[in-house]
Amino acid sequence: MIIIMKMGATDKEVKAVSDRIEGLGFKSHIVIGDELTIVAAIGDQRLPEPQTLELMDGVAKVTHVMKPFKLASRDFKAEDTVIPLNGVRIGGQKITVMAGPCSVEDLDQMLDVAWALKEAGVHILRAGAFKPRTSPYSFQGLGIEGLEILAQIREQTGLAIITEVMGAEQVPVVAQYADILQIGTRNMQNFNLLHAIGESGKPVLLKRGMMSTIEELLMSAEYILSHKNYQVILCERGIRTFETVTRNTLDLSAVPVLKNLSHLPVVVDPSHATGHWELVPSMSMAAVAAGADGLLIEVHPDPERAVSDGAQSLNPERFSQLMKQLKAIAEVVGRST
Amino acid sequence: MIIIMKMGATDKEVKAVSDRIEGLGFKSHIVIGDELTIVAAIGDQRLPEPQTLELMDGVAKVTHVMKPFKLASRDFKAEDTVIPLNGVRIGGQKITVMAGPCSVEDLDQMLDVAWALKEAGVHILRAGAFKPRTSPYSFQGLGIEGLEILAQIREQTGLAIITEVMGAEQVPVVAQYADILQIGTRNMQNFNLLHAIGESGKPVLLKRGMMSTIEELLMSAEYILSHKNYQVILCERGIRTFETVTRNTLDLSAVPVLKNLSHLPVVVDPSHATGHWELVPSMSMAAVAAGADGLLIEVHPDPERAVSDGAQSLNPERFSQLMKQLKAIAEVVGRST
Amino acid sequence: MIIIMKMGATDKEVKAVSDRIEGLGFKSHIVIGDELTIVAAIGDQRLPEPQTLELMDGVAKVTHVMKPFKLASRDFKAEDTVIPLNGVRIGGQKITVMAGPCSVEDLDQMLDVAWALKEAGVHILRAGAFKPRTSPYSFQGLGIEGLEILAQIREQTGLAIITEVMGAEQVPVVAQYADILQIGTRNMQNFNLLHAIGESGKPVLLKRGMMSTIEELLMSAEYILSHKNYQVILCERGIRTFETVTRNTLDLSAVPVLKNLSHLPVVVDPSHATGHWELVPSMSMAAVAAGADGLLIEVHPDPERAVSDGAQSLNPERFSQLMKQLKAIAEVVGRST
Amino acid sequence: MIIIMKMGATDKEVKAVSDRIEGLGFKSHIVIGDELTIVAAIGDQRLPEPQTLELMDGVAKVTHVMKPFKLASRDFKAEDTVIPLNGVRIGGQKITVMAGPCSVEDLDQMLDVAWALKEAGVHILRAGAFKPRTSPYSFQGLGIEGLEILAQIREQTGLAIITEVMGAEQVPVVAQYADILQIGTRNMQNFNLLHAIGESGKPVLLKRGMMSTIEELLMSAEYILSHKNYQVILCERGIRTFETVTRNTLDLSAVPVLKNLSHLPVVVDPSHATGHWELVPSMSMAAVAAGADGLLIEVHPDPERAVSDGAQSLNPERFSQLMKQLKAIAEVVGRST
Repeated sequence: MIIIMKMGATDKEVKAVSDRIEGLGFKSHIVIGDELTIVAAIGDQRLPEPQTLELMDGVAKVTHVMKPFKLASRDFKAEDTVIPLNGVRIGGQKITVMAGPCSVEDLDQMLDVAWALKEAGVHILRAGAFKPRTSPYSFQGLGIEGLEILAQIREQTGLAIITEVMGAEQVPVVAQYADILQIGTRNMQNFNLLHAIGESGKPVLLKRGMMSTIEELLMSAEYILSHKNYQVILCERGIRTFETVTRNTLDLSAVPVLKNLSHLPVVVDPSHATGHWELVPSMSMAAVAAGADGLLIEVHPDPERAVSDGAQSLNPERFSQLMKQLKAIAEVVGRST
Repeated sequence: MIIIMKMGATDKEVKAVSDRIEGLGFKSHIVIGDELTIVAAIGDQRLPEPQTLELMDGVAKVTHVMKPFKLASRDFKAEDTVIPLNGVRIGGQKITVMAGPCSVEDLDQMLDVAWALKEAGVHILRAGAFKPRTSPYSFQGLGIEGLEILAQIREQTGLAIITEVMGAEQVPVVAQYADILQIGTRNMQNFNLLHAIGESGKPVLLKRGMMSTIEELLMSAEYILSHKNYQVILCERGIRTFETVTRNTLDLSAVPVLKNLSHLPVVVDPSHATGHWELVPSMSMAAVAAGADGLLIEVHPDPERAVSDGAQSLNPERFSQLMKQLKAIAEVVGRST
Repeated sequence: MIIIMKMGATDKEVKAVSDRIEGLGFKSHIVIGDELTIVAAIGDQRLPEPQTLELMDGVAKVTHVMKPFKLASRDFKAEDTVIPLNGVRIGGQKITVMAGPCSVEDLDQMLDVAWALKEAGVHILRAGAFKPRTSPYSFQGLGIEGLEILAQIREQTGLAIITEVMGAEQVPVVAQYADILQIGTRNMQNFNLLHAIGESGKPVLLKRGMMSTIEELLMSAEYILSHKNYQVILCERGIRTFETVTRNTLDLSAVPVLKNLSHLPVVVDPSHATGHWELVPSMSMAAVAAGADGLLIEVHPDPERAVSDGAQSLNPERFSQLMKQLKAIAEVVGRST
Repeated sequence: MIIIMKMGATDKEVKAVSDRIEGLGFKSHIVIGDELTIVAAIGDQRLPEPQTLELMDGVAKVTHVMKPFKLASRDFKAEDTVIPLNGVRIGGQKITVMAGPCSVEDLDQMLDVAWALKEAGVHILRAGAFKPRTSPYSFQGLGIEGLEILAQIREQTGLAIITEVMGAEQVPVVAQYADILQIGTRNMQNFNLLHAIGESGKPVLLKRGMMSTIEELLMSAEYILSHKNYQVILCERGIRTFETVTRNTLDLSAVPVLKNLSHLPVVVDPSHATGHWELVPSMSMAAVAAGADGLLIEVHPDPERAVSDGAQSLNPERFSQLMKQLKAIAEVVGRST
């Protein structure tokens, strides 16, 4: 931590800062410049509330030197985290594609799409039983009934299941049915949920908040990791910007940034990021070219009739074609599908 | 709802849209323009998933005509909602100031600040027992022990208590202690929490998500109102933008916009919005000048020693001085404190 | 400037950085922490392109300690800059209101509104002869003819004139007619224009770019000041965010922040910020309560018939009423109108 | 254009709107719904200032139906625009890579890099003689001397030259030297410059404003096209968001969106978008996978010694390696390099 003093700060003010820092268990080091003085605080720099030092007389600014996350960082663990599941290794050499409809609607719909996905080479099925919806008047998901349908699909098709959990109180029931628990974009900083999922020990896919920084995403991962649950998959799904042509703005540079800062697997959700199925194939290929470990794609057997998110869903034919293109891109970047 | 057809859409495509709309229970009305054709859908326009119509051949765009919220709107209820509590009437003629420290630290700290606030004219004390923190390594609040301290403060000082609840599973316990339940910015779209608070029947202060539009804020209020809990206070607390000098960007124009769209009381939190105590007095005055019904202000007996958010807390002297300025501004806009 | 080394940076890498810094004319100072080493560079820290140091082996990040602007800063000049013009003192004790229509339309329109504004207490008339328009098909302003009309208005009414200049090549002609040159939001970083206006020696109102930070606004002011033109007025006019209910988001906290960082006068344009005339009175009052030195307000004799920006224009009656409210608010904050 | 009336608008108000619309040369069509009435205006809908209709009694909102750009749209011209230049066809089947240093520094530097780029397969050299810099204290470019150097490079190497022009008054001189005129991100809405470049008839690369929408980019292109200069290349170069790890956020979904809305070629600048050379290769590959027609990449012979933007420049070796990867990606999407 570095404390930058105001121009003209007095010796007494500098000393007070230095004393305060040492009182907090740091060593302090004063660097006197031509125009400014800085005080470096040496030691464990993850002090809670360092900003209160800015209230001291003569202090201009407090700057952090160390990253606020630890367990999630490459400095802590250099090699990639790989999560083995249902015969695939998420974060390994192969690209993992998770696909399926936005919502579980009924068993027939799910069976239709599940078999089509399996045939296209998918190992993990996504579908929502509990749905976070902006409007209380929109379809809120089938709930437990939806989880039961997913369990049947898994039994019949052998696909693993990823599905969303919306609150700490739902973790036990969802964990009973799902292979991977999904945390939605609006819940990335639902800290009670992060603690509960950390405790559950289940693999988790953590979506970036649509208005959260990459550092905040890693801090939310840190919550889960701090419970010794190391099976965390990060997901870039678009951020909110001033541009309204697309539902959100897919931040693909987050992929190499995250792979550089962290050892955790990184997947991309082009369906929610763009909101338009026509953009999903190009953004999926771009994500793999950018180094993503996998994709989360909405596929619906009849998008026009979907109860939610139809506009951003591929139909099975288009999805199957996309899988072929992904295979070719993956090879260029030294991966496979 | 209006469906705008693509240039060159065929009669057959227009008819298919018209038929689909009628199948959904609307009347349809075709308007043929020089370059474009539109289809108006007449009826209850709060259709779930109208966007799926964009998947039909020849459709360019679907535009909404009606507001997606109803119970929260002025169209539904023209007169201001007023919430009576502990001798004050939130949303009434008087400006309601809620103040207190970020976190409950201990009984002595709380008593100190509570008596000072009471003397300055405050009726409602804010303080957090459960704290949402970006980092798992930061102070997470005293929990139930903090709630117990707040109960003692209420008993001794007569102040009403507003405190945050972080998940649906905590509603019963927090509702036992608090006079107003606070929903934090990161939980504005925690829909399980919204349902649970709607059910609780307690007054609630709903903070705008730092990434949420005004319309989304009203949709989250709608969740609570749809449970027949009408005691909802809206709170503007700054939104996330590209500007980093302030913690967030206080969107004061949201105040008159919300007062115009909705009958619910609107308060402003200048402490979290700005992140710097020096900016709190000017932004508090500006908020009242802009038509806010109240303020939520962080006050700490010794900001430099606060365990959280010290940098944005006023000390009691500065707060007391601010209360005098607010009184003068309130009079100019026909209100009182 | 502080160079933060990567964890595990070698002594050799640290020495290379230190040598490089000294080669650039700084003194260097190495601070070895428990986990990280930092190198402080002492001297004139306004080095162009310090970021290239991040390319050196072992360097994690380069952090700036000093503000990048100098002439615009309070550190350089503590007392407020006051710009005397036509009997008013912009930046002085009195609030300066500049008002008028978006565009000069014809002499009658301008005379109508000018006399009404004068009667309401305005000293400076705003109106555009050259208009920056998103669409090439929109009205682009009357050009020189508009400037001629403004000159006639000044002669007849005694009002001073502020009008926009859109490019360096237009500065000579506009400077011939205008009392204050206005730089629009899209031109805040039109550096050729900034240089030309700096050279002109005329008072200038510099609008914040809708996409620009407060620091960038001050850097653009620095361009003008570096030509020894010290008559610069800063203008907050709303920034672009994800919120679309208002045309832009008025960042009122920029007012106290700018007044704190800089000695230059700060005015607010609530018309462009909000885009809706109904929001202009409340935001004008809030701006004065927040400490603004003045306002820039669109007033049109018949907003429904305006050729541009009618939706955000007050009519003269509403404007006249607002002037009375502003007087009362100004008094509360120790100012007058 | 569709005018949505307020709930409870009177027949008289609806009629007044209808009359006004007809007075403006439209046919009007009234659609009476259960809760709301709308008035459709049929005719040429590119009315300047339709928003003033919102000032009429009883009007809630005015919604546009038609795209505001015409010459730039696919509806106007279905087939791709291809710009032939120096043996390459920008917008054609082959990916066009333009590369070079941020600034022209001296002839030796430029010759070094130019020959290396030529060897790597580049046909168009980018380098700045006039430099837009946030700070007046930063290197502002060599100006005319830089243009002279570029002319020598062209003569010796046969490379075509793209270089930036910063104001309308510079167009004649830059047009004399450059093969493609570049409009920088801060000048996307410098309308005087757009007019001047339109008049020049030279090929132009138009960078998206870092805070401009895709629609605004196309409107700026429309300015140039309206002067019958059809050789416009659009460039996505990152937009400003709340994320600060990267210099800007590269909006790759803009590529397929632009290719869908417009017939103009679309290139991507991953160097300015990310600000870090490590991110340039992955984002370049992603851009080609997303369907870009070309790339604009910063390459410097010795990035650590660059006078500007060194941190985001590739050295020639890394660039040469990237060219090989791009070739492989291009083939997957049916293109070549």
